[in-house]
Amino acid sequence: MVGKSQIKLIKSLQLKKNRIQHQLFVVEGLKTIQELLKSSFEVYKVLSTDEDFVTDHEEVSELISSADLKKISSLNTPNGYLGVFKMAKLGTIQLNDWIVAVDTVQDPGNLGTIIRLCDWFGIKNLVCSTTTVDCYNPKVIQATMGSITRVNITYLNLSEFLQASELPIYGAFMEGEKVYNSAISSKGILVMGNEANGISSEIAAFITKKISIPQFGDQTAESLNVATATAILLNEIRRA
Amino acid sequence: MVGKSQIKLIKSLQLKKNRIQHQLFVVEGLKTIQELLKSSFEVYKVLSTDEDFVTDHEEVSELISSADLKKISSLNTPNGYLGVFKMAKLGTIQLNDWIVAVDTVQDPGNLGTIIRLCDWFGIKNLVCSTTTVDCYNPKVIQATMGSITRVNITYLNLSEFLQASELPIYGAFMEGEKVYNSAISSKGILVMGNEANGISSEIAAFITKKISIPQFGDQTAESLNVATATAILLNEIRRA
Repeated sequence: MVGKSQIKLIKSLQLKKNRIQHQLFVVEGLKTIQELLKSSFEVYKVLSTDEDFVTDHEEVSELISSADLKKISSLNTPNGYLGVFKMAKLGTIQLNDWIVAVDTVQDPGNLGTIIRLCDWFGIKNLVCSTTTVDCYNPKVIQATMGSITRVNITYLNLSEFLQASELPIYGAFMEGEKVYNSAISSKGILVMGNEANGISSEIAAFITKKISIPQFGDQTAESLNVATATAILLNEIRRA
Repeated sequence: MVGKSQIKLIKSLQLKKNRIQHQLFVVEGLKTIQELLKSSFEVYKVLSTDEDFVTDHEEVSELISSADLKKISSLNTPNGYLGVFKMAKLGTIQLNDWIVAVDTVQDPGNLGTIIRLCDWFGIKNLVCSTTTVDCYNPKVIQATMGSITRVNITYLNLSEFLQASELPIYGAFMEGEKVYNSAISSKGILVMGNEANGISSEIAAFITKKISIPQFGDQTAESLNVATATAILLNEIRRA
């Protein structure tokens, strides 16, 4: 059975500053935990109410009571499995393919979905402004459905990164060229903006090609959600 | 100031059965309320803590205290505006363009995003299996960002609807024809399935064209989220 000090440590990981201090993050759900155990992420500990699971993974896991699990889970109804993993060392950002860059994406579900999309479309590198939600936030991990293990995510000063880049830099703007008519480069950086405000003016200054997703019918909709816009644009980039 | 019986009624609308009984639903947030006030939805009442708003809309609105608003809001931090509207009478389903059909989509955010996508891509009609989350659920309304007012949504027996239809019926399957190579019909029904299980076998029997969204890179991702898959497929249908 897991001890009190462990419970206290794991509970503290709900806050970003403690995740950074300990270089640990929490994952809930059997399926995602199994994906992480198979990945290059190093496991710290898996806690479970499932005795069979603990027996099968005795080197890395410990039994936990439902009551204790409820104390440390970020879910309303914990599902019986909580894994703690070590944060990944940053990989090198490869510049020979498309890169996705996000500027202050704040909803965990949106960032998680964008990570899952990068995985689907074979985008190896995602760069995030330091104002973007932490990718080790449990809701982000949840929404990635395991894709967190296959995308190299780097937090950096996005202005400096774009300024230093020699790749074409694409961004979606209402007044941009319709993406269907656009000759799309074989590599580049696709910048996606904040949910409410889009790409900030500071970052917009670095965009070398403004594109737009055509709208149909009465054109009454105001905008697309950032994750669905990313889906459409990555599909356009890959089908080109 | 709003009375106790009104508060009790509005609070009861958090449950679907009460929404159906009273034919009323709740919307929170100034922007969406303003969209609904401009739309064909009939207003029942808008409650607000904002005296200026109430003065400007005196025929339809009443002042509410922050404490009372907290009691009836479904948000952790209510934002000062709560509207109650009458459910729309069902429009006729038009068969001269694409229709989106959802089979047991259960996450409110996903259904709301799909409604927003229909609006963007000029899809007038969305049909939902009766096992799909209620479109008047506050989280669905929230995620539509006002698009709920511009898409005709019908709950029906999806099997019967598809069986009676003479339109081509498309569905996404891993083994389907790659959508990039596919000759896409000028009208039809696009069926999207449940988050975990995809299109049910009962519904799959009616699909006349199986399509797939190509995957890239190492092809390690397991699937796409249903809302992002809808985004990509509607974009493919409209760009065809």
